[in-house]
Amino acid sequence: MKLNCDMGEAFGNWTMGLDEQIMPFVDQANIACGFHASDPLTMSKTVALAKQHNVTIGAHPAYPDLVGFGRRNMDIAPEELKAIIQYQVAALQGICAAQGVKVTYVKPHGALYNTMMKDFGVLETVMQSVSELDSSLVLMVMAVPEADEVKMLAQKYQLTLWFEAFSDRLYTDEGRLTPRKQPNAVHQSFDRIEQQVVELSEQGTLTTETGKHLAVHADTICVHGDGAHALEAVKRIRTVVNDVAGRLRN
Amino acid sequence: MKLNCDMGEAFGNWTMGLDEQIMPFVDQANIACGFHASDPLTMSKTVALAKQHNVTIGAHPAYPDLVGFGRRNMDIAPEELKAIIQYQVAALQGICAAQGVKVTYVKPHGALYNTMMKDFGVLETVMQSVSELDSSLVLMVMAVPEADEVKMLAQKYQLTLWFEAFSDRLYTDEGRLTPRKQPNAVHQSFDRIEQQVVELSEQGTLTTETGKHLAVHADTICVHGDGAHALEAVKRIRTVVNDVAGRLRN
Amino acid sequence: MKLNCDMGEAFGNWTMGLDEQIMPFVDQANIACGFHASDPLTMSKTVALAKQHNVTIGAHPAYPDLVGFGRRNMDIAPEELKAIIQYQVAALQGICAAQGVKVTYVKPHGALYNTMMKDFGVLETVMQSVSELDSSLVLMVMAVPEADEVKMLAQKYQLTLWFEAFSDRLYTDEGRLTPRKQPNAVHQSFDRIEQQVVELSEQGTLTTETGKHLAVHADTICVHGDGAHALEAVKRIRTVVNDVAGRLRN
Amino acid sequence: MKLNCDMGEAFGNWTMGLDEQIMPFVDQANIACGFHASDPLTMSKTVALAKQHNVTIGAHPAYPDLVGFGRRNMDIAPEELKAIIQYQVAALQGICAAQGVKVTYVKPHGALYNTMMKDFGVLETVMQSVSELDSSLVLMVMAVPEADEVKMLAQKYQLTLWFEAFSDRLYTDEGRLTPRKQPNAVHQSFDRIEQQVVELSEQGTLTTETGKHLAVHADTICVHGDGAHALEAVKRIRTVVNDVAGRLRN
Repeated sequence: MKLNCDMGEAFGNWTMGLDEQIMPFVDQANIACGFHASDPLTMSKTVALAKQHNVTIGAHPAYPDLVGFGRRNMDIAPEELKAIIQYQVAALQGICAAQGVKVTYVKPHGALYNTMMKDFGVLETVMQSVSELDSSLVLMVMAVPEADEVKMLAQKYQLTLWFEAFSDRLYTDEGRLTPRKQPNAVHQSFDRIEQQVVELSEQGTLTTETGKHLAVHADTICVHGDGAHALEAVKRIRTVVNDVAGRLRN
Repeated sequence: MKLNCDMGEAFGNWTMGLDEQIMPFVDQANIACGFHASDPLTMSKTVALAKQHNVTIGAHPAYPDLVGFGRRNMDIAPEELKAIIQYQVAALQGICAAQGVKVTYVKPHGALYNTMMKDFGVLETVMQSVSELDSSLVLMVMAVPEADEVKMLAQKYQLTLWFEAFSDRLYTDEGRLTPRKQPNAVHQSFDRIEQQVVELSEQGTLTTETGKHLAVHADTICVHGDGAHALEAVKRIRTVVNDVAGRLRN
Repeated sequence: MKLNCDMGEAFGNWTMGLDEQIMPFVDQANIACGFHASDPLTMSKTVALAKQHNVTIGAHPAYPDLVGFGRRNMDIAPEELKAIIQYQVAALQGICAAQGVKVTYVKPHGALYNTMMKDFGVLETVMQSVSELDSSLVLMVMAVPEADEVKMLAQKYQLTLWFEAFSDRLYTDEGRLTPRKQPNAVHQSFDRIEQQVVELSEQGTLTTETGKHLAVHADTICVHGDGAHALEAVKRIRTVVNDVAGRLRN
Repeated sequence: MKLNCDMGEAFGNWTMGLDEQIMPFVDQANIACGFHASDPLTMSKTVALAKQHNVTIGAHPAYPDLVGFGRRNMDIAPEELKAIIQYQVAALQGICAAQGVKVTYVKPHGALYNTMMKDFGVLETVMQSVSELDSSLVLMVMAVPEADEVKMLAQKYQLTLWFEAFSDRLYTDEGRLTPRKQPNAVHQSFDRIEQQVVELSEQGTLTTETGKHLAVHADTICVHGDGAHALEAVKRIRTVVNDVAGRLRN
């Protein structure tokens, strides 16, 4: 089980997240590409930081909406969406190439991520975009109950998938995230977060909002790099994941 | 002698230039990368057009200034300038990769071009940027009298240079462009343009504003893709260059 | 019956529309405010042009989406939408104030216009925004069958409404625009356009796609300032509208 | 003696500065207008905060350079600069009007501020811009030795001036700021800051880098709203300024 985290979400003079402190504890950095956050210099610095800690680099492309942080849905036609993704991923590939490292995977950001997990037409456009650019790139998607359908689409485009689950979000019985409007949507206690990570890593299941244990195959767990308790949470999740890995090896 | 032309300078809903009509007559397309003009979809369409006509593709990176079309000087620190150029060139590389073609050269645009030809510190930053990204990329620069100095810098960064001259601009005795403020700065007649192209191609000289013949080594001539007479001018220059090439072969 | 036209849709170095040629023939100029098109200098020039021809000035605010020309729907929360509209309208008010003229009305643009005419929650946010800014501003909306509902909302915010109809668009029996995907959605012949304008001006009805005559109260007709036949169409509509006005006076 | 502070420098999802904590201690808020920082919603919230604390509102217009935070010089032609300033100031006027308050003054930001204090041609363009928009707006400028020249220019445009001095910057004997590159350019100790504020308020002089006492007429002192010790510094300066005012009254 790997840990992935959004990184490089500063923009010009504005900072965001605790990249320098969090980077040593994660395996995969989802690096913003300038459309919802970041700028070329920030990308360059973030790549250098990931390289320093041997963290696998992923591109984190988004809708073109800086002021909305890529969190607002936008009706973008498929041909344009394909080009938008290729542009962003390739830009990060270049920033990486200049430092002798490379982009390993792509994880769409924000509204684009949510939309593609709901609308498999959009997901297919994303896959086509990535595959055309470089089919050796892995696509990171949400671990959903319809994983088989997602896998079949990925095969069509010769893409490898990494499925991710969330450490601090409550899930519905249908394997979807409980909407943030609900009071218990986000786990507030470290214990609950640790419990979810252990269950995911060890049993391959999640405890849903009704208490069911839902089978979820995840390759990687998404952790958060900003907020008051981010560093503490990431350290604990890192420890838990390492412990489980140790137990599973023995 | 090749012909190069700025291409893909549309932006979203706005058009610019006669790309479809001009593309068949040029050898090299300097394709805007989204910072002074263009957007991912426009880049994708422009690459497709260049591919269709077997035109060599160059990246045309610029300062981040859409509303000023990259024509206003901006004080950008070297580290940021390096990242800005890598970002843009790499983005175009990705758009090209998705269509099975590649970026062969880089020609900085507008104020960045003018500044680097005046301030070799900036030129060196440009070279470093391109070389770090991919030292097989050629850098297109203005054919200036200080060409030897430029070549030495390029060697330091293992870059090949292509020197360009202008078909329709008057030159000073120092081998610089006569400022546009002067009434005769831009050749208005096709005859004068043809004369300059022939002299450049055949003799390797230019007739300056005082009537001197100045030795100028040019690998490529810049032609313009917009304006009322652009297509007519490009066709004539194409004919003239082909004629000279025919004569030189015999 | 007035004629209104979108104006000032250039952006930096890019031009759009035939503003100088069209301005003399219209009564109301919907001037872009920098979020879907235009920039401060273009706004200043467009205001000067409108002033020169005694054309009533309207603000044409939009979603923040230059590359999509404000034509893509965006999920923007009400508080932000209010601020976005106030920002744009007020910016144009300032550009006008500097030239001794004023903004008389507001007509939302593109996707914002379409959304507010479908979702009266959004329409109410628009009204609240305009009313808070300056309740002497008129709001231009589409002449829809639910006009009474729109009027009641406007009363709540003490806003005057101007209803607009389209000269070259086919209408459904429900008084909505026939979607552009349908082949006959846009009238291609000048005769059909003139017929629609005369019927609207003289009878207060429209001939729908099934041939019904639908009662539509319109204060102003939207004409287009770009496209190959724009100038010709506007001149004809101007003549027709003037003729009807003459007949109605007698 | 008043205290002014840059406010509302967040952008979308990114925060900056301690506006809520600082606002109660200052007299004048220089509110960013969307070109170097801020966005319509942030402006609306910042105006609400200023209104709540009865703080005088100023517009803080800048060059159009979000990623560079308006700190990079840009060659912008006078006509465009005029429109850029009017656009920004008026946008804030609208946001204020919607809340029943108003913009009292204009203080250019960053590179625009520095450039206008060095190049009085640019200063004159700024004055012309503000005067055309609304000559009742006050212009806040740096208290420089050439104040008489600045005043004469302002008279030409019927503008009132407020001169500002800096609490934490060392000055040269020529009354200019010691460049930031020099190690002592920024006062690090609260004592030195307080000393400068007291001297300015009470004696109307500044102690320069060579120890001279330079006469400087200031109407307002600029304090900083971000950085680790910003709140502490502002509270101390507030106390000192109030103390001096008390002494001067007696």
